[in-house]
Amino acid sequence: MNIKNFPWEDRKENDTSPVWRYSKNPIIGRYPVKNIARIFNSAVLPYHDGFVGIFRAEQHDGVPFLHVGYSKDAIHWDFEESKIKVYDDNNQLVEYRYMYDPRLVEIEGTYYAIFCTDNHGATLGLVSTKDFKTFKKIPDPFLPFNRNGVLFPRKINGKYIMMSRPSDSGHTPFGDIFLSESKDLMYWGNHRWLMGKNHLWWQNIKIGGGSIPIETKEGWLIFYHGVTGTANGFVYSMGAAILDLEDPSIVKYRCNNYLLTPSEPYEEMGFVPNVIFPCSALFDEKTGRIAIYYGAADSYIGLAFTKLDIVTDYIKTHAEKWNI
Amino acid sequence: MNIKNFPWEDRKENDTSPVWRYSKNPIIGRYPVKNIARIFNSAVLPYHDGFVGIFRAEQHDGVPFLHVGYSKDAIHWDFEESKIKVYDDNNQLVEYRYMYDPRLVEIEGTYYAIFCTDNHGATLGLVSTKDFKTFKKIPDPFLPFNRNGVLFPRKINGKYIMMSRPSDSGHTPFGDIFLSESKDLMYWGNHRWLMGKNHLWWQNIKIGGGSIPIETKEGWLIFYHGVTGTANGFVYSMGAAILDLEDPSIVKYRCNNYLLTPSEPYEEMGFVPNVIFPCSALFDEKTGRIAIYYGAADSYIGLAFTKLDIVTDYIKTHAEKWNI
Amino acid sequence: MNIKNFPWEDRKENDTSPVWRYSKNPIIGRYPVKNIARIFNSAVLPYHDGFVGIFRAEQHDGVPFLHVGYSKDAIHWDFEESKIKVYDDNNQLVEYRYMYDPRLVEIEGTYYAIFCTDNHGATLGLVSTKDFKTFKKIPDPFLPFNRNGVLFPRKINGKYIMMSRPSDSGHTPFGDIFLSESKDLMYWGNHRWLMGKNHLWWQNIKIGGGSIPIETKEGWLIFYHGVTGTANGFVYSMGAAILDLEDPSIVKYRCNNYLLTPSEPYEEMGFVPNVIFPCSALFDEKTGRIAIYYGAADSYIGLAFTKLDIVTDYIKTHAEKWNI
Amino acid sequence: MNIKNFPWEDRKENDTSPVWRYSKNPIIGRYPVKNIARIFNSAVLPYHDGFVGIFRAEQHDGVPFLHVGYSKDAIHWDFEESKIKVYDDNNQLVEYRYMYDPRLVEIEGTYYAIFCTDNHGATLGLVSTKDFKTFKKIPDPFLPFNRNGVLFPRKINGKYIMMSRPSDSGHTPFGDIFLSESKDLMYWGNHRWLMGKNHLWWQNIKIGGGSIPIETKEGWLIFYHGVTGTANGFVYSMGAAILDLEDPSIVKYRCNNYLLTPSEPYEEMGFVPNVIFPCSALFDEKTGRIAIYYGAADSYIGLAFTKLDIVTDYIKTHAEKWNI
Amino acid sequence: MNIKNFPWEDRKENDTSPVWRYSKNPIIGRYPVKNIARIFNSAVLPYHDGFVGIFRAEQHDGVPFLHVGYSKDAIHWDFEESKIKVYDDNNQLVEYRYMYDPRLVEIEGTYYAIFCTDNHGATLGLVSTKDFKTFKKIPDPFLPFNRNGVLFPRKINGKYIMMSRPSDSGHTPFGDIFLSESKDLMYWGNHRWLMGKNHLWWQNIKIGGGSIPIETKEGWLIFYHGVTGTANGFVYSMGAAILDLEDPSIVKYRCNNYLLTPSEPYEEMGFVPNVIFPCSALFDEKTGRIAIYYGAADSYIGLAFTKLDIVTDYIKTHAEKWNI
Amino acid sequence: MNIKNFPWEDRKENDTSPVWRYSKNPIIGRYPVKNIARIFNSAVLPYHDGFVGIFRAEQHDGVPFLHVGYSKDAIHWDFEESKIKVYDDNNQLVEYRYMYDPRLVEIEGTYYAIFCTDNHGATLGLVSTKDFKTFKKIPDPFLPFNRNGVLFPRKINGKYIMMSRPSDSGHTPFGDIFLSESKDLMYWGNHRWLMGKNHLWWQNIKIGGGSIPIETKEGWLIFYHGVTGTANGFVYSMGAAILDLEDPSIVKYRCNNYLLTPSEPYEEMGFVPNVIFPCSALFDEKTGRIAIYYGAADSYIGLAFTKLDIVTDYIKTHAEKWNI
Repeated sequence: MNIKNFPWEDRKENDTSPVWRYSKNPIIGRYPVKNIARIFNSAVLPYHDGFVGIFRAEQHDGVPFLHVGYSKDAIHWDFEESKIKVYDDNNQLVEYRYMYDPRLVEIEGTYYAIFCTDNHGATLGLVSTKDFKTFKKIPDPFLPFNRNGVLFPRKINGKYIMMSRPSDSGHTPFGDIFLSESKDLMYWGNHRWLMGKNHLWWQNIKIGGGSIPIETKEGWLIFYHGVTGTANGFVYSMGAAILDLEDPSIVKYRCNNYLLTPSEPYEEMGFVPNVIFPCSALFDEKTGRIAIYYGAADSYIGLAFTKLDIVTDYIKTHAEKWNI
Repeated sequence: MNIKNFPWEDRKENDTSPVWRYSKNPIIGRYPVKNIARIFNSAVLPYHDGFVGIFRAEQHDGVPFLHVGYSKDAIHWDFEESKIKVYDDNNQLVEYRYMYDPRLVEIEGTYYAIFCTDNHGATLGLVSTKDFKTFKKIPDPFLPFNRNGVLFPRKINGKYIMMSRPSDSGHTPFGDIFLSESKDLMYWGNHRWLMGKNHLWWQNIKIGGGSIPIETKEGWLIFYHGVTGTANGFVYSMGAAILDLEDPSIVKYRCNNYLLTPSEPYEEMGFVPNVIFPCSALFDEKTGRIAIYYGAADSYIGLAFTKLDIVTDYIKTHAEKWNI
Repeated sequence: MNIKNFPWEDRKENDTSPVWRYSKNPIIGRYPVKNIARIFNSAVLPYHDGFVGIFRAEQHDGVPFLHVGYSKDAIHWDFEESKIKVYDDNNQLVEYRYMYDPRLVEIEGTYYAIFCTDNHGATLGLVSTKDFKTFKKIPDPFLPFNRNGVLFPRKINGKYIMMSRPSDSGHTPFGDIFLSESKDLMYWGNHRWLMGKNHLWWQNIKIGGGSIPIETKEGWLIFYHGVTGTANGFVYSMGAAILDLEDPSIVKYRCNNYLLTPSEPYEEMGFVPNVIFPCSALFDEKTGRIAIYYGAADSYIGLAFTKLDIVTDYIKTHAEKWNI
Repeated sequence: MNIKNFPWEDRKENDTSPVWRYSKNPIIGRYPVKNIARIFNSAVLPYHDGFVGIFRAEQHDGVPFLHVGYSKDAIHWDFEESKIKVYDDNNQLVEYRYMYDPRLVEIEGTYYAIFCTDNHGATLGLVSTKDFKTFKKIPDPFLPFNRNGVLFPRKINGKYIMMSRPSDSGHTPFGDIFLSESKDLMYWGNHRWLMGKNHLWWQNIKIGGGSIPIETKEGWLIFYHGVTGTANGFVYSMGAAILDLEDPSIVKYRCNNYLLTPSEPYEEMGFVPNVIFPCSALFDEKTGRIAIYYGAADSYIGLAFTKLDIVTDYIKTHAEKWNI
Repeated sequence: MNIKNFPWEDRKENDTSPVWRYSKNPIIGRYPVKNIARIFNSAVLPYHDGFVGIFRAEQHDGVPFLHVGYSKDAIHWDFEESKIKVYDDNNQLVEYRYMYDPRLVEIEGTYYAIFCTDNHGATLGLVSTKDFKTFKKIPDPFLPFNRNGVLFPRKINGKYIMMSRPSDSGHTPFGDIFLSESKDLMYWGNHRWLMGKNHLWWQNIKIGGGSIPIETKEGWLIFYHGVTGTANGFVYSMGAAILDLEDPSIVKYRCNNYLLTPSEPYEEMGFVPNVIFPCSALFDEKTGRIAIYYGAADSYIGLAFTKLDIVTDYIKTHAEKWNI
Repeated sequence: MNIKNFPWEDRKENDTSPVWRYSKNPIIGRYPVKNIARIFNSAVLPYHDGFVGIFRAEQHDGVPFLHVGYSKDAIHWDFEESKIKVYDDNNQLVEYRYMYDPRLVEIEGTYYAIFCTDNHGATLGLVSTKDFKTFKKIPDPFLPFNRNGVLFPRKINGKYIMMSRPSDSGHTPFGDIFLSESKDLMYWGNHRWLMGKNHLWWQNIKIGGGSIPIETKEGWLIFYHGVTGTANGFVYSMGAAILDLEDPSIVKYRCNNYLLTPSEPYEEMGFVPNVIFPCSALFDEKTGRIAIYYGAADSYIGLAFTKLDIVTDYIKTHAEKWNI
């Protein structure tokens, strides 16, 4: 897809980083709209002439819900003041206790948001919309406990594909990414382990899916988060891998190095210090430009850029040694 | 179903207990067959002229696998010396790292065993057999972490129904029972919370499904385990509930009292002290007799009896106060 | 006080133990009365021609409440089938969520039971009675979290004196005994630390008050429990100390050795293995005989005997080395 | 009370926040006086022509004690270089191991400081003074473990009233506010649960009393702290409630939203990141102005402002939904 | 070495176990000598015409020290009533805070006991004796934290060899066996990892050295303990391995199966339930008989038998699959 | 030793701090050389005309290794892009899984680096070099678990002396400093406890060795780190002590106050907030100047200055009260 008004900034001269931050980060600061304290860990897509997003928005009672936002340039955003309303099959409003960490994908003309919510335990929720005004609930794909659901942007061999991380009821110090499939988005099976934490310290505690996979000639490009533990808490960095196009349960390349690790004040200081949490990426096919949206310190949204060839080369170059 | 040679012992005079132990318990003791140290948490069914069972058998390296056993009277058992062999769709032998806590059910002429095994975390495994000689693997119904899968003995409204307990990677101090459904045993969805731990101390830490539900006029009768915590570890007791026949997500009666709690030496002393873990029950429709098989102290199998009217009355009588 | 029908058994010849068990222990076994699974950690007093007691009785839903029992010989007991009823100042029935580990004392013709109950956390409850038929609630003496309240059997210098153990909301691995005082049983103050765990392994995790102090010439004789931790849980033993008669915040002698540690099957095996928990003691002044009632394995009541001179000598003899 | 030189700054135009920070925060920075590394969590009162305060002052060995400070404008402070000296009834100097988190109140012409100290466990300490030169010890009101004691500024129905939070010996992840009363500040009773953590995420771990209650027509206005947990530690925010004037055990309004949550560098970065801990508030009756002093990141003192009508309206407006 | 009065009992007919228990176990029961509550985890050697041992003896204050015992038949023992006295180089009595889990070995005519004691943390202690009357302290071989030191019965290539398990300050859920060497028993180095816990459940938590290695043609035969975790605590079983004679850092065979796991009441019930802890073994070269002494439930000493060919065959037969 | 180009900055007027920070801190920032994200916790020495250092350098996969760096002024550094290569006795390259927190010392013309690495657990590694090009492995001095090894800069009474902190496999909340000795750097013994955490809050969790001891007339001057715990993690400060010259197991003075505690943004914000970790110090004998290098927030290197007389006076002045 070629995207109009694609957000972009060139890499600085002499910079050889595979991914570089937007110089005006964070693009979304504190108290971004009435009644909302912080927006982070959110997802955007091109929409009509501009962009649309589903945003994790912390209310002033500390509870997160999802708000729709619109933008012309994918950098400056207008947020709706009310959280999204979801209806069930009987057109009854669904009462969620909380909703957070959405991913957003368009499949065959319908938009789907996957997020974390509660069903007697943290569980993946799933809703669809055509217009970002009315959302329809689809039954939860999995049993609790699960967070970080990422739906592929098209069916593969007639099946919807979902990455997710089975978990438990806390800030659990473990977690691998699994793959599941469904014919109808209602019943899910064929669950397979995709990849896990490994001995590389930046991802030696747990990992979790990030942005919607980007379809490339090399395979599905995914940005994910890896977590390590320190004497003073966890650190979340951004990593990347490339999955086989036809059988995404095959990891073709998994980069040993992180692409981005917290080192800016808006990443190191905030509600949860030292968090870079990618949830979304835009890809402009013609130019190869990629814009990655990431939650920073559970307080801000940061933007980072790369190009398809740069990041692919980097992943492949740094995948030789540990490719578990 | 009317069962020949149904195992039975009458309740002692003046005993008003809703469930009573077999006087010759445990029916399976230590080192019951070559290379096996302990058999417990297992499941039996009527089979041909006698009975068949799938048994959790601890090898001398401490790893549990499943062994088939046969009996004429459902009390004295002959066990196969080798663990069951399971084949996949390509007729390849499946290598399990471990298999434990089986439940066994017959649906439309095929036998299904559900058990706990490993798929990068404790997960439910599912296999089918017609003859207890060859077992065929069906893909895991759920993502990890899950234990205590219990399949209903018939489809309801065209769907297979499974109770299970989402969990995590340890002896987690939490756990509720959920219900899931499937049209084909391959893809599962419509996951709903069924019932959880509550304020009654014997089940205030976690609960988990036990025997295959027994179809009665009042509804599906289930025996399950409830767990409490003490200064010196967990105590597992046996409870019961009755679910709606047509919509088993409706709990009609849930008994406030346990039916059985550890108080015999073979329940209080062993590899895991203070465990009563029901996994299986036989029901003779004509006489109303029920025989419940339970793991005792992760070391033995105990047998307990009741009659349908006695246990149903007891459940209903003691369900008035807390019915969460 | 001289007590009729004092329960007693002589020490065996050649036995030099400071305290010896009743040969027919446990005196109260499992399922002692309808609807009650276990009775333990309880308190008795002489009453009219015989004895009365307030007993911790586990209902079949696992929740403990207090039942009254009567006995002619302080060994064989008849228990009431219903828990005690407590009324507040407005004669309204008080709804307790649970009641356990009672101590019982007579002060100036009124009987007081102190026990553990819930007030948004485990707290000491206090009730009075004259006839063991009607109980009247006195406001909780302390804030949560507290267990093991022991009231002295008379006022000292015009003040009621209470030993208690400040604690938290679990099976906390810490706990010392404090002393508090009150002029009216309503308002409490002058809280002072009395004694704590020490380096002797049997009491190196926590300690807690046991029986009502016995007034002797040497001072207040108390039996208490000390707790140690092992690779497989806690072990509760019985210890003793002697407090100054006029100022019980002065510990005159504290015995380095336990008087009794779990080594009988009814102490080592049960709902909570390895627990000896003294809650009550009878003292016959004329003969010097002492009968100690202790909960065993949270499942039984055991009885142990000593004589005032024997136990006093033993305490003093073994108090020289560590007297912290 | 009308207060001269009341510290004040108007709310910025277009700002609709119920509470706003002083633009020159923090008012007390690092190393504020010789031998003291940090001052925070402290309490002030009008005094003579200016203001007096009792300040938590961290010595260079890391141990906190209390220092007196004086100010003309309640913003710039002069601190004494020595910690306060407290004497007991026998005029002996009391040796405290530490003293922290003071609250300060005047009742009938005497000043009382309540703080956390050690009595074989973290306990509330209480001292009185008339001149801030000599302090007299009053026995500890409660048994350990307790922190966050807040005394009401006048007797109600002849009784002193204290809010406190029963706790344990660590940074415990639980804690509710209780109310106790006393006729003489010596003996305390009638302990009642006032309010606890709830499902609103900002206060879903624990809460604790903050400033001395402000008497208003609507009731007693209290500012307190609520705590939530994140992947990287706790976050302390400031909340508010209004208690009934005559019976302060009745919570009339409890605001669902926090009034202030860490989002400034001096709140997010320091010895304990992400802490806003209100300990004191000044109220000017004539103008309705309120100045709130809060510890920031256990490193600084911040100042925030509101007006009685603004904050009362906000509390009442946001109290409708969850008022547990 | 051929040993007179070697303790022995033949294996029962039809029994194919590699190791079998003495039918009169436990050989040492509760309260075995004045002032001692329990003896277990101890070590014996042939001595003069009979046998000598160093025994872990729990005093009545719960603290363990070492006592010498003598026996004619290695089954019935007479214990000294006083703990061993150890002197330093200046002939001063060494004050130990505790001593436990001794191993005993004779090297070149001197007897060495290695045990666990305290040096600001649990550490290995080392003493030598010639007559079991006077013991001389040798400086601790290692830094804390370490338990389970086992010295080889002769120098290899001029060096003393010690197995030990680095640990920490609790009942740590980890632990591998390392090998160290010394020229003089004073300075230790060349520390190498020998073997660790593995995926076999009976030894999947930690392992630790047991008896002094027995020199055989196949290599050094060692009996060690392996630990697994259950819902109710740890279970300690006995395993075996054979190390290379000339380079004992080479594990030639490590048996996948345990040789003995708790299943007798004296192993399952006691101060620490479910513990089999081998500390010592006698080997009669002429007959090939082996007698293994093991602590049972931290309360008793059990005796088990095997023959060199039986146990060697068993180890080699069951070493094929996992030999990590 | 008199050092050319000694790094230096005078203390600011009116500043009475015993140690003061370099005004241009941090001297080493993020991404200091290709492929390295952060350099901290490192060690330097005078070398030829300038300075050499061994630096902890975090690779982009999060794993730390050691890099050599050179400097003319000890402030601006050039780092090698490759980690150091270490060879064993057979001239084989040693494969380390990680290397971190190096200390560097010259003894009799050879340079030794001690660091933390893995030998089935965190262990001290030791290498020697003459030219900083080739490094030779010396066997690990101790068993795991150990970190923070500090070698004295000369033999004392013919023995090498090492400070170290026995530990376990995590960010353990305990740790004391021990002293060990060796005649040959191969075999170590005579382990003695040197000093531990104490009641001063800044060092009440654990302590660990820092820079190589500086020989002065008063004794060996050491800078070490002390750790405290807060509601949001650990805080590492810098302390100091003076050990006896001839018998360094004697602590002559131990300063009650920290010399430096995190209060600058580069110390409070980073990969591990609130860490000051001294690893190295330069001492110019002629001027008495001391330059201390410390890791800041596991992200930077900071530099601090003092003079021998200033710091010695401060230590002695503040050692009177607690000198445990």
